[in-house]
Amino acid sequence: MDKFTCVQDIGDLKTAVAEAMEIKRDRFQFTGLGRNKTLLMLFFNSSLRTRLSTQKAAMNLGMNVMVLDVNQGAWKLETERGVVMDGDKAEHLLEAIPVMGSYCDVIGVRSFARFNDKAEDYEERVLEQFIRYSGRPVFSMEAATRHPLQSFADLITIEEYKSVERPKVVMTWAPHPNALPQAVPNSFAEWMNAADYDFVITHPEGYELDPKFVGTARVEYDQRKALEGADFVYAKNWAAYADPNYGKVLSRDRAWTVDAEKMALTNNAYFMHCLPVRRNMIVTDEVIESPRSLVIPEAANREISAQVVLKRLLEGLE
Amino acid sequence: MDKFTCVQDIGDLKTAVAEAMEIKRDRFQFTGLGRNKTLLMLFFNSSLRTRLSTQKAAMNLGMNVMVLDVNQGAWKLETERGVVMDGDKAEHLLEAIPVMGSYCDVIGVRSFARFNDKAEDYEERVLEQFIRYSGRPVFSMEAATRHPLQSFADLITIEEYKSVERPKVVMTWAPHPNALPQAVPNSFAEWMNAADYDFVITHPEGYELDPKFVGTARVEYDQRKALEGADFVYAKNWAAYADPNYGKVLSRDRAWTVDAEKMALTNNAYFMHCLPVRRNMIVTDEVIESPRSLVIPEAANREISAQVVLKRLLEGLE
Amino acid sequence: MDKFTCVQDIGDLKTAVAEAMEIKRDRFQFTGLGRNKTLLMLFFNSSLRTRLSTQKAAMNLGMNVMVLDVNQGAWKLETERGVVMDGDKAEHLLEAIPVMGSYCDVIGVRSFARFNDKAEDYEERVLEQFIRYSGRPVFSMEAATRHPLQSFADLITIEEYKSVERPKVVMTWAPHPNALPQAVPNSFAEWMNAADYDFVITHPEGYELDPKFVGTARVEYDQRKALEGADFVYAKNWAAYADPNYGKVLSRDRAWTVDAEKMALTNNAYFMHCLPVRRNMIVTDEVIESPRSLVIPEAANREISAQVVLKRLLEGLE
Repeated sequence: MDKFTCVQDIGDLKTAVAEAMEIKRDRFQFTGLGRNKTLLMLFFNSSLRTRLSTQKAAMNLGMNVMVLDVNQGAWKLETERGVVMDGDKAEHLLEAIPVMGSYCDVIGVRSFARFNDKAEDYEERVLEQFIRYSGRPVFSMEAATRHPLQSFADLITIEEYKSVERPKVVMTWAPHPNALPQAVPNSFAEWMNAADYDFVITHPEGYELDPKFVGTARVEYDQRKALEGADFVYAKNWAAYADPNYGKVLSRDRAWTVDAEKMALTNNAYFMHCLPVRRNMIVTDEVIESPRSLVIPEAANREISAQVVLKRLLEGLE
Repeated sequence: MDKFTCVQDIGDLKTAVAEAMEIKRDRFQFTGLGRNKTLLMLFFNSSLRTRLSTQKAAMNLGMNVMVLDVNQGAWKLETERGVVMDGDKAEHLLEAIPVMGSYCDVIGVRSFARFNDKAEDYEERVLEQFIRYSGRPVFSMEAATRHPLQSFADLITIEEYKSVERPKVVMTWAPHPNALPQAVPNSFAEWMNAADYDFVITHPEGYELDPKFVGTARVEYDQRKALEGADFVYAKNWAAYADPNYGKVLSRDRAWTVDAEKMALTNNAYFMHCLPVRRNMIVTDEVIESPRSLVIPEAANREISAQVVLKRLLEGLE
Repeated sequence: MDKFTCVQDIGDLKTAVAEAMEIKRDRFQFTGLGRNKTLLMLFFNSSLRTRLSTQKAAMNLGMNVMVLDVNQGAWKLETERGVVMDGDKAEHLLEAIPVMGSYCDVIGVRSFARFNDKAEDYEERVLEQFIRYSGRPVFSMEAATRHPLQSFADLITIEEYKSVERPKVVMTWAPHPNALPQAVPNSFAEWMNAADYDFVITHPEGYELDPKFVGTARVEYDQRKALEGADFVYAKNWAAYADPNYGKVLSRDRAWTVDAEKMALTNNAYFMHCLPVRRNMIVTDEVIESPRSLVIPEAANREISAQVVLKRLLEGLE
């Protein structure tokens, strides 16, 4: 494997999950693999879970880790050719990226959608430039349109807890005060479709996701109807994708909050969320604290998904 | 040992000091103990000595270290249940803390008194929540009411330099431009009492510490009288504890500054301070630069106290 | 070697370059040398290349690394004796520096010229204080007047690419929107003179460097004439050194930009720059992207120059 940005990069999902379980049994069995190998983690956006879990995964493999926080405002990279760089951009990406690549063996990049320019976001310009110019294997630590380490951890969690071969998984929009990117729901949809679960998406009108990510999922605008018989409920907020409302908050309607009454419609479903979560907006205290809440083991699996990805990238060197 | 927040946690002090001396003889003799173990250092307040000395101690033991700086303003954790989280708090501690615990083996937390709410400070709400919810051994890297790694280093230093079994140790208040927490003086008092030294506290009226920490110490409002015959002088500023002046600066009187004339009243005492120190407020240049000043070896012992604590926490894992 | 701040510290250059080549053949052959040794990297100014390359070099040698970012504004050190420290300076360097020294084995310091006080800059007060008070080997990660790790990497690069024993090397001033320190050009001049190349400096009038650094170099005010027959063109901006214009921008004249037409005057010269570079101010896109541009391998050699220096400092410990 020489990059990890989407579900296609990980290949067969059953094999990937089996590898995750193998690592979970003893996460220190491959410490030789990372010997004298250096991971550079580059954050254009701040991070808690991704930073800690990915760093931990790299150390489990015996890697050295360097972390670079790039204040998006402070370190402005020029991306165009022909520009006279007499303004506030101190460096061109055509120099910055290969130089960073020269000091490490693997690069992880976090760069969110900015909601300024839909094309820039959905073409993944920042991530793609690292893939093209760094000379190193690159993996996404959440990009503009996908968060594959999160989705892989979600998949591992569902595989650990499911009691039927093909569970019903419902991803439901829920309210949030701010405008959030579509990376998590896009990516979750992509992975659920690839896993061939019985997958349903429910959201208010106007919150339709990019059809490329919705794929074969069923979309159901009636949240209660969607939740009927669900084995897993995956809650998430996102801002509108469809024009002309791209990046806008259209609703903060708490009628969409996941509560115990709605969970009662399901097949005693597990509750999932990628965290951080706004309690009593996305989900009630009661549901997130219930024995069917998987949010903590789901977050713990971020270390495992990162370790599978790093292990494969290391195996792909030479 | 499964936590370290106060003198009681370290147990018998003679044993603890002997262990410190053993480590000081060869600080790399236990590098196997930390193999594949990860320390998470979490700073709600900035740090120089604590950060470097604790990280060094962990590396001496062969641990991996992750450092997370939490800007107290930027990362606001909700602590109450039932709140609709539609404001500026992005995460609930009931999710944040166990997730951080899932990525490490030991957690160090620094969280100062904020002087907004005396009960919140003196109940150590932040530290206690980590102990309760992280699922990992937690140690204090200075909390609201105590700084036990500093006090342990102070004890080691006194034991190294004392020439009588039961030295006279005088902790004196001294002036400072700003309002400082009581963590260092509280904690020093607690450790000196536990060590059963001849321990005296001197300060202006209005600067009385919490009686829980003063314990069996003698309080003497006349600084000169207190200093007579002292073997160790421990200078420190703190803001008022007693209501209604909690967290206030009542005096900046430089008549309390430790100078050579006052040191002449002592039994050729050593001078100590936890650093950073305001020269010519707390202590004159002459005293801090004298051959009896222990401030540098005292700071160097921070690495040793941290290593004893980490070693014991590691030994306590399973 | 017990410090590294200038070309004299590295000794014979042929030996140093040979050692660099040896390391480049296998950068992991000395991993035992750094075992249980800790590098403290202290940044008073921000850094990308220097941080990553030096950290990588230290890890190649098996060292532990601690990084401390010191916001120049936030952490103000008092440097004078006798001052009553009741203002915004929280600590005196006479305490801060030896304490930092006590937690590590080697210290790297980055501290730029501030252009407030020429004497303060050119006496290297910050760096010299670390050398004097830390008790540890200190190396410069760019100081007020020199950037020796960069110059050493430049030398290695020239030695790798030169086709004649004594190449003609031309350092040319080029325009930039901001006032930049003289550390890079001073240092480059010092190293080129020591290497005994045919070395020419060209710049507009008013941009004369300190004669101590110019040394035996020829200064030519006509850029085109200077470039004739050059084997290497080293472009760099700097602010004025000579009084009364110290630290000022006297020109942003793009007639000094290095372009293809000027490169055609050379002996098919290689183009070099320390990065970050302002394209189409310092150099055109065409020249920096040409096959004769060495900016990426030059930056990659920063890891090598740092590793030679760290290796020698480690060898010098007892």
